Amino acid sequence: MYERMKDELLSKIGRYPFMAEPFHCDFNDRLFVGNLGNDMLNAADFHSNERGYGMHYLNTIHRTWVLSRLAIELDDMPKAYDKFNVETWVDGVMRYFTSRNFKVADDDGAVYGYGRSIWAMIDTESRQPTDILSVRDGLIKEYVETDYECPVRKASRVPMDINKVVETIKPVTIDTHYSDVDVNGHINSVKYIEHILDLWNLDWYKEYRLKRFEIAYVAESHEGDKLNFYLQENDDESDERVRLYNILVTKTAENGEDGVEVVRSNVKFVKD
Amino acid sequence: MYERMKDELLSKIGRYPFMAEPFHCDFNDRLFVGNLGNDMLNAADFHSNERGYGMHYLNTIHRTWVLSRLAIELDDMPKAYDKFNVETWVDGVMRYFTSRNFKVADDDGAVYGYGRSIWAMIDTESRQPTDILSVRDGLIKEYVETDYECPVRKASRVPMDINKVVETIKPVTIDTHYSDVDVNGHINSVKYIEHILDLWNLDWYKEYRLKRFEIAYVAESHEGDKLNFYLQENDDESDERVRLYNILVTKTAENGEDGVEVVRSNVKFVKD
Repeated sequence: MYERMKDELLSKIGRYPFMAEPFHCDFNDRLFVGNLGNDMLNAADFHSNERGYGMHYLNTIHRTWVLSRLAIELDDMPKAYDKFNVETWVDGVMRYFTSRNFKVADDDGAVYGYGRSIWAMIDTESRQPTDILSVRDGLIKEYVETDYECPVRKASRVPMDINKVVETIKPVTIDTHYSDVDVNGHINSVKYIEHILDLWNLDWYKEYRLKRFEIAYVAESHEGDKLNFYLQENDDESDERVRLYNILVTKTAENGEDGVEVVRSNVKFVKD
Repeated sequence: MYERMKDELLSKIGRYPFMAEPFHCDFNDRLFVGNLGNDMLNAADFHSNERGYGMHYLNTIHRTWVLSRLAIELDDMPKAYDKFNVETWVDGVMRYFTSRNFKVADDDGAVYGYGRSIWAMIDTESRQPTDILSVRDGLIKEYVETDYECPVRKASRVPMDINKVVETIKPVTIDTHYSDVDVNGHINSVKYIEHILDLWNLDWYKEYRLKRFEIAYVAESHEGDKLNFYLQENDDESDERVRLYNILVTKTAENGEDGVEVVRSNVKFVKD
């Protein structure tokens, strides 16, 4: 696609249509947040491919994008069969990181929510970070959009003392399988979101709605690793309709190596 | 949609475009069979809604379609970003069951595979089967297509003696969670497919390709049920490049009720 369009710049903001597929909706007929996350990652992928700095081109130079952080803030969720658009744009680029924003809205402009994400670029052989600005002479800089509004906080550091958490909290441990693994051989980013949101049961979701979800990908995990989910309630909140949680995920590798942190997350539920 | 088109019959065969989304592909960059199954169920849903006997209408008369059996036979799988079409049509209808076929092919007509399915219609209050032909005066009969080719066997009965299986095989037991549950409050049909295909690991899938998958939905299960997967190799096959397995799934309900069969499946792997 880049070749065809290289003489004209595309708009900085990409807009991609999706539908809340009925079998991707929860007991309440609302799109699962994991599936919305998947659509957002698709939009990011389409957007960057169309503009010449996506996976399609990066694969040819042995590089790839790696999602480092994602924050989603939601006022509403599409119902089954609802059509919606994910808009996405890069709002900042540095040598080793870019930040990419998302807006999820319907055709009439009613907003479901927004997202912010941070991406790194790695060399697929060394697995080390590489210089984003060296790709196609810094082409990505041509597409930085800083004026379009994204009224949500960036992902913040989740304050958890890993030693204390591991000592005091009993984790929920799950096995990872074939269907958790993506083409890079790693546990798929979206699967962590699903596994984290599965820490609460149906009765919880009948009472509370997910308002904000943040996740930071710290290290990679692989098929066969056991994932240990440490869930800690954050008591800082005074509003009793709001519940905040921190989640730390470690892996126990098949070779017995234990306690390596792979993901850190926090979630905010509200009772509407 | 039915209202708009009621004076003209649509074609009997519906055709719906999909794409193998990159994050729905496995380590080998091929679409997961569970995701293909999801696309097939979407196609069935779109097809029946457009023709006036789908969930949209059925919801207004307190009825719903229930998938009873599904068989998929595959020669190939779409790679990441491949576009493909799912064609679907009803090839038979009786009072309590309809059979619906699928063909998965690309725009040039290259066939990935075919599917056959059996559906019942139930009353959403009594959960009992209802007369399919009573809906809109048997409208569905106007759309039966028997000439279009679907060159795969129907789903067959899987010969497993549940008592013997439960006594002699150690099951793989998993918990069910929020993200497994659909709008009917039951474990989602596609999730069983994923859980079954997760009984084999990545190394297996590096050597073998799924050639045929059959599943029969026997009873419903709910969030909180434990699912017990009993896997039995079928030795009838003489070709050493072919491996056949039967799978029986039972549930252990939260109230302790145990051993109720919920799903029966068989799969055929081939070494190409």
